Amino acid sequence: MTVATQILLASRPKGAPTTDNFRTEKTQLPQIADGQFLVRVIWLSLDPYMRGRMDDAKSYAKPVDIDGVMEGGAVAEVMESRHGGFKKGQIVVGPFGWTTHAISNGDGIRVVDPEQAPISTALGVLGMPGITAWVGLNHIGRARDGETIVVSAATGAVGAVVGQLAKARNMRVIGVAGGAEKCDFAVKELGYDACLDHRAHDAKSLSDAIKTEAPDGVDVYFESVGGKTLEAVLQRMNTHGRIALCGMIAWYSGQGIADAQPLPAVWRNILTRRLLVEGFIIFDHYDKFPDFMSEVAPMVADGTVKFREDVADGLENAPKAFLDMLSGGNFGKQLVRVGADPA
Amino acid sequence: MTVATQILLASRPKGAPTTDNFRTEKTQLPQIADGQFLVRVIWLSLDPYMRGRMDDAKSYAKPVDIDGVMEGGAVAEVMESRHGGFKKGQIVVGPFGWTTHAISNGDGIRVVDPEQAPISTALGVLGMPGITAWVGLNHIGRARDGETIVVSAATGAVGAVVGQLAKARNMRVIGVAGGAEKCDFAVKELGYDACLDHRAHDAKSLSDAIKTEAPDGVDVYFESVGGKTLEAVLQRMNTHGRIALCGMIAWYSGQGIADAQPLPAVWRNILTRRLLVEGFIIFDHYDKFPDFMSEVAPMVADGTVKFREDVADGLENAPKAFLDMLSGGNFGKQLVRVGADPA
Repeated sequence: MTVATQILLASRPKGAPTTDNFRTEKTQLPQIADGQFLVRVIWLSLDPYMRGRMDDAKSYAKPVDIDGVMEGGAVAEVMESRHGGFKKGQIVVGPFGWTTHAISNGDGIRVVDPEQAPISTALGVLGMPGITAWVGLNHIGRARDGETIVVSAATGAVGAVVGQLAKARNMRVIGVAGGAEKCDFAVKELGYDACLDHRAHDAKSLSDAIKTEAPDGVDVYFESVGGKTLEAVLQRMNTHGRIALCGMIAWYSGQGIADAQPLPAVWRNILTRRLLVEGFIIFDHYDKFPDFMSEVAPMVADGTVKFREDVADGLENAPKAFLDMLSGGNFGKQLVRVGADPA
Repeated sequence: MTVATQILLASRPKGAPTTDNFRTEKTQLPQIADGQFLVRVIWLSLDPYMRGRMDDAKSYAKPVDIDGVMEGGAVAEVMESRHGGFKKGQIVVGPFGWTTHAISNGDGIRVVDPEQAPISTALGVLGMPGITAWVGLNHIGRARDGETIVVSAATGAVGAVVGQLAKARNMRVIGVAGGAEKCDFAVKELGYDACLDHRAHDAKSLSDAIKTEAPDGVDVYFESVGGKTLEAVLQRMNTHGRIALCGMIAWYSGQGIADAQPLPAVWRNILTRRLLVEGFIIFDHYDKFPDFMSEVAPMVADGTVKFREDVADGLENAPKAFLDMLSGGNFGKQLVRVGADPA
């Protein structure tokens, strides 16, 4: 019998979450039945969308139940299988949750090829964040070669891919990130034309700085933060610009909402500049996964698209790493090492 | 020599405009030169967009200068011509402004066929408001047969056409209008499935009423008002719904902005419901005018699309009629009769 260590949602946060909202528990897993397989988790992914799952507000996905295992994507090794599609020793990626071990019937699970790239990339540049970047840039943002794009959370798991794919399309790419170190990385390692530190600016001066860096205005805004970055970029959008809205992390826990730009000012901008704003959730677009992989996997292999990971060690450190990430403390794709690499 | 009576912008409004912002003046027009023609105006169109032209805020079009003639579309008769494309006695439509007479070089002027429909329709159902409705419904709102649409300003020059075109496409059509009389007209004359009186509701109860009338949710929102109607409809939008944003009359003069729903709540809606919000200005879409006319002119001729006009008599009454229209006092397409019908 296998004992899984799991992290549960102990209570719903009021405002910003704390470690008290989580609880660790050991659970004895049953024997697998026909059509099931058992995995041990190697890498757990931490992503901003998980914050939404902690609330019980109506959203695109069901909230995690109180005392339920926190949801999350993970890379794992198949330990034992009675499922025709998966065999012992394979590396797989799927929604196993914040746990050391899990039993699956294969729903939503994909086999990972360890020869193609490091297996952790199945949670980052070649996984959900990567396809979010690719869909948001191309299908939602309708980016065209030579245009100017602003990328919020520029060095994050999604933003870093957006920026590099945009550079590969000869766009002018301006990042916004928190802190000089991230901005430096964005320019020197990821190839951004410029990166602005939102911590050094208020909305007005950030807007002025974008004007300097985007003298022809902004055609596409890859929006995952809201707050003053949104406010600043809105002032610089070109006529017929597009906003690919995939997140609003600055507002997830209620911070800054009282200071937010009022809706009428934003609505006026959308109208007079004839902007297209489209919200998207990547799970609607997974049919494009093969197209994404065939385009981006070779770019990762040849180094055109680089990736950076920020690793917390041990499942027990997942809550703290998650909270740090929500306030921008991570630097690169946030992972938790839950188990050893495969032999 | 021809003397034109003209209405000028005397001063920029602070908040809601008043008749003091306008001034009437008589101007002696010069003789026409080669390539020009002289018209006398028969019908002047009053449209909400003119409110924006009175401010000097950056927008998609230049503001009217102080002491400049108020801009506006008008139907007129050619009195004298030294232009190869226009001849005496023809009826034309174009941006002649708030004036009894004008000289034109033909830019932006279109000949109107008086046999096709009453010439005033060139300013309404078969003119700028009509094509705004048609483009907004089909190209921006991406309406599909059988879907549910909410139309704000449901009996206005644009809304009335949106509603009737949507009904012709077998959509479920819910109007929002100001007052029981307009709502009654929307249902009985224009064929709306339901029409809600925003004056009888706050945002919450309007949202509840929309829920009752749109049990399957709202797929398309034709947005020209902002304010509580927007707030109410946003709560009822379906996943992958579309908002065709062509105006925000409730906010044009600064009213209600302090009470507006905060941006983060709206942004969250756009994100989690994966809405597409697109601002549009009809002048970007005039290449579609022939397609619009070939589809809608026969529908006007056979009575499928009805129209209602609200006529103010005499150019001197244009300012008052315009102010009434901004507060919803008109009932149907607002026109000013400036001159007699052609002989």
